[in-house]
Amino acid sequence: MEKTILSYDTVALDEAGAALVIIDQTKLPNEFAQLRLTEQPEIWDAIYRLKVRGAPAIGVAAAYGAYLAARAIDTDDYETFAGAFKKACDYLNSSRPTAVNLSWALARMMRAAEAEKSHGVAAVKARLLAEARAIQQEDIDTCRKIGEYGLSLLSPGDGLITHCNAGQLATSRYGTATAPMYLGQERGYRFRVFCDETRPLLQGARLTVSELMSAGLDVTLICDGMAASVMRKGWVSAVFTGCDRVAANGDAANKIGTLPLAIAARHFGIPFYICAPTSTIDMATLTGADIEIEERPAEEVTEMWYEKRMAVPDVKVFNPAFDVTDAGLITAIITERGILRPPYTETIATIMGKEQD
Amino acid sequence: MEKTILSYDTVALDEAGAALVIIDQTKLPNEFAQLRLTEQPEIWDAIYRLKVRGAPAIGVAAAYGAYLAARAIDTDDYETFAGAFKKACDYLNSSRPTAVNLSWALARMMRAAEAEKSHGVAAVKARLLAEARAIQQEDIDTCRKIGEYGLSLLSPGDGLITHCNAGQLATSRYGTATAPMYLGQERGYRFRVFCDETRPLLQGARLTVSELMSAGLDVTLICDGMAASVMRKGWVSAVFTGCDRVAANGDAANKIGTLPLAIAARHFGIPFYICAPTSTIDMATLTGADIEIEERPAEEVTEMWYEKRMAVPDVKVFNPAFDVTDAGLITAIITERGILRPPYTETIATIMGKEQD
Repeated sequence: MEKTILSYDTVALDEAGAALVIIDQTKLPNEFAQLRLTEQPEIWDAIYRLKVRGAPAIGVAAAYGAYLAARAIDTDDYETFAGAFKKACDYLNSSRPTAVNLSWALARMMRAAEAEKSHGVAAVKARLLAEARAIQQEDIDTCRKIGEYGLSLLSPGDGLITHCNAGQLATSRYGTATAPMYLGQERGYRFRVFCDETRPLLQGARLTVSELMSAGLDVTLICDGMAASVMRKGWVSAVFTGCDRVAANGDAANKIGTLPLAIAARHFGIPFYICAPTSTIDMATLTGADIEIEERPAEEVTEMWYEKRMAVPDVKVFNPAFDVTDAGLITAIITERGILRPPYTETIATIMGKEQD
Repeated sequence: MEKTILSYDTVALDEAGAALVIIDQTKLPNEFAQLRLTEQPEIWDAIYRLKVRGAPAIGVAAAYGAYLAARAIDTDDYETFAGAFKKACDYLNSSRPTAVNLSWALARMMRAAEAEKSHGVAAVKARLLAEARAIQQEDIDTCRKIGEYGLSLLSPGDGLITHCNAGQLATSRYGTATAPMYLGQERGYRFRVFCDETRPLLQGARLTVSELMSAGLDVTLICDGMAASVMRKGWVSAVFTGCDRVAANGDAANKIGTLPLAIAARHFGIPFYICAPTSTIDMATLTGADIEIEERPAEEVTEMWYEKRMAVPDVKVFNPAFDVTDAGLITAIITERGILRPPYTETIATIMGKEQD
């Protein structure tokens, strides 16, 4: 079978367990390049520059990154190790503020280390490797389940809109918002998918289009401002997006441009679904107003892909990387543990209180 | 005084009356170039490729283009002249379908020719020159009046959002949506203006930002998908856009991305104003559903400014150049004859029935 972009892991540890291997997503679709990262600043930079991106994939990359940091700490004394390890985790955690999966994965790695400390540093390192692998495997299982739940909301022939890339390239496999599309494709649903290009970094045009087309889906690329026209034409019956953090009340931060999409969906009476592994639900964030929104460099907007200046040099730019969609605009939140409906404060608390299955 | 982009005519006839002189807007802001066009295919191409753009400016360019066509028709027989002139007008009219100012200006030129026919072809040509100049002067007067009416809706310090370029570069002077901003700037209103970049062709980033900054306004560039976040922050008190055609019921076609902006404004309770010379109101178009929406080449979306491919080669693209904002989403339509409020079917009929002042 022909190799496609879907044949490669978005994030992986190399066979020797000595390097994080990622697809450099800033080069897609013009160039397919894998990067082999061993140093912490390289890993930090890969996250900051969106070479690896997508809330779940960032979590997995951070977990492997933390393991690689642990591996390089040369001591048998646990307290010395723990101090250095915490410093490494804090450093990785500073790479991007909005996606909670980053801090979630790092906190989980630190808990795993602590749990193993009585067995010595070597055992801790082994445990951290196992923990990172578990985070990745759970991501795969989670996405698959989100796909099944999402698909249960759809009918063959449906038209769908998605924003940014909540696809395989944002996770370890299947994606979140794309998981129902991939499963539907396997089962002959013949969806028609409209992909917002997603300015400024064009994750839709560059990534989502590529991966959905390589799975044989019927894909149409649009600019973000065209989604409302597509909705009015009656071409779509649902919107599926991923998310970077869900607050306890159901407000959801996702890639900038998601909020106007949700508002337009509401205007046209089209259901708006957020696909969220429970790892992106942050009970410590009470509402969307508490989510820190990353602001990124002006050049992402003013220069066409860092190559050609498209605005006068001294213009001010507001470049928030995310926006917050109010819970009231979200028809349902699709998690690996089931489909959550309003009132979210209750349904989220219930599902997050359950033991993980 | 330093020359800025505002020091040059967007559209003009050269001193000899032998060529249409335009600013090549596809080169802005990186390069300022004026084009001197004499041949009909050049003028058609300049409109089609958006070297000259904006509904009012297209109307003026077409009027001068029609005059230049008339000038080149070498006959003293009026019927021969009229046949050739109609053919030239039909040709220019085929360059873009959505902005009604194009057909409006050409129809007016044909009526002017017909009105003068008893005086012979030479007199007809002189009349056509006068008519084209009148269309341009009326455009200037109209924009100024729209500016006064628009400014009456605003307070000093207001934040505003605009989309695409309904500025001086879209008209003969002042612009439509920008006219209240320029007048306010002269009178110390200190507006803060957010410009949508306006994908795919970036008229906001390339043109509006340039012209507003050269007038000293406080301008912030955003991607189209960021406008809803700006609204939620409480930074703006009104949205001002131009339009390409207003139907008899108040539905308004404007640059793609206007509809989601209007929907978001409604969601956040922010007034949404359309600035429309009465030449863009088309009583023959009953509702927005009757407006032909131009679809443009995929490469406008898939290639970053025609230079770098940003999506896989065989992707399907839907690239409508305009969308239609429902009358129900429009707070008021600002014309040179006054501010129209709902019910538009009545207020438009009343104002269009009046003699032009």
